[in-house]
Amino acid sequence: MSLKPHADFRRLQELWPAIEEYQALATQHGIDDIFQDNGGKLLQVLLLLDLTVIPGREGNDAVDSSGREYELKSVNLELTKGFSTHHHMNPVIIAKYRQVPWVFAVYSHIALKAVYFLEPADLDFYFNKWEQKWHDDGGKDINNPKIPVRYVMENGRLIYGEHPQLRTRGGRPVMPPDTGIFDADG
Amino acid sequence: MSLKPHADFRRLQELWPAIEEYQALATQHGIDDIFQDNGGKLLQVLLLLDLTVIPGREGNDAVDSSGREYELKSVNLELTKGFSTHHHMNPVIIAKYRQVPWVFAVYSHIALKAVYFLEPADLDFYFNKWEQKWHDDGGKDINNPKIPVRYVMENGRLIYGEHPQLRTRGGRPVMPPDTGIFDADG
Repeated sequence: MSLKPHADFRRLQELWPAIEEYQALATQHGIDDIFQDNGGKLLQVLLLLDLTVIPGREGNDAVDSSGREYELKSVNLELTKGFSTHHHMNPVIIAKYRQVPWVFAVYSHIALKAVYFLEPADLDFYFNKWEQKWHDDGGKDINNPKIPVRYVMENGRLIYGEHPQLRTRGGRPVMPPDTGIFDADG
Repeated sequence: MSLKPHADFRRLQELWPAIEEYQALATQHGIDDIFQDNGGKLLQVLLLLDLTVIPGREGNDAVDSSGREYELKSVNLELTKGFSTHHHMNPVIIAKYRQVPWVFAVYSHIALKAVYFLEPADLDFYFNKWEQKWHDDGGKDINNPKIPVRYVMENGRLIYGEHPQLRTRGGRPVMPPDTGIFDADG
């Protein structure tokens, strides 16, 4: 080890004041560390929607200025096409899920690209499916069932950004949902 | 939800180009996501020491331009005073640990404050202790035994930054190690 920094270290130092300020902003909004657990991504959607994280809760629950709670989920489209939910899904969790509106944040790498809003009724298809499966399996918790991005696009209301271009594994674009479906939700 | 951004959202947008550039720098150095797994912190120590991450390895192994490998550990002093090691410590891991020099990065929140270099021999005390415990426990892996920051300060060579001020739980400062001890290592 030469103890001589890489040439890019100077560039890092130039950028550092902005990073520290980003962290200071995050700290003010309840995010202790932007570099862990997607903290720096979460900050984007919190400020965009003027939401506050609820400390000490599992997952990313959030609350708005009127006190209304939301279930907050996020996905990086470069890694996966489905939103994670809960590692021990069962009827207790599902009952809680049925009581709050959902905010789905779609990222490409670290940048927020789209946000969708769904009422719990819009997710009945999955809630019912998971409940059925849990009972069919004799009361065994389901490990992190996913909600496809495509389902969220088709059944939710786009409240920020643009519909992302989903691609099949072969690289062909998936058709965006007919915008007509959003009328019923809006 | 009002769909009206928080006043700080504008500040986030102003900072965003610098964040994107920080991520671009990270991407060039093998870190896909600065906002996960301390990626944005790891970048600081990699560039400072001109090291490259070894992809696909568990933990933060790094290699320098001459091909020499290092074990890389980090700690956030605001959260804990010990370096995490391995969640299944056993003689196989320890044998590997004995073969490479160690780099310990000390952070305060997200900022790199000090880096220490230790030869594997400097860590014999812990390697021997863990091996003994593993055998005494009948071959049971040890869950993430810690290496105290104080031990690293006292037995390592400070290669960047300044000795951090450790504090006891009561808030009293812990005396920094006698700087004389570093002569033997350097």
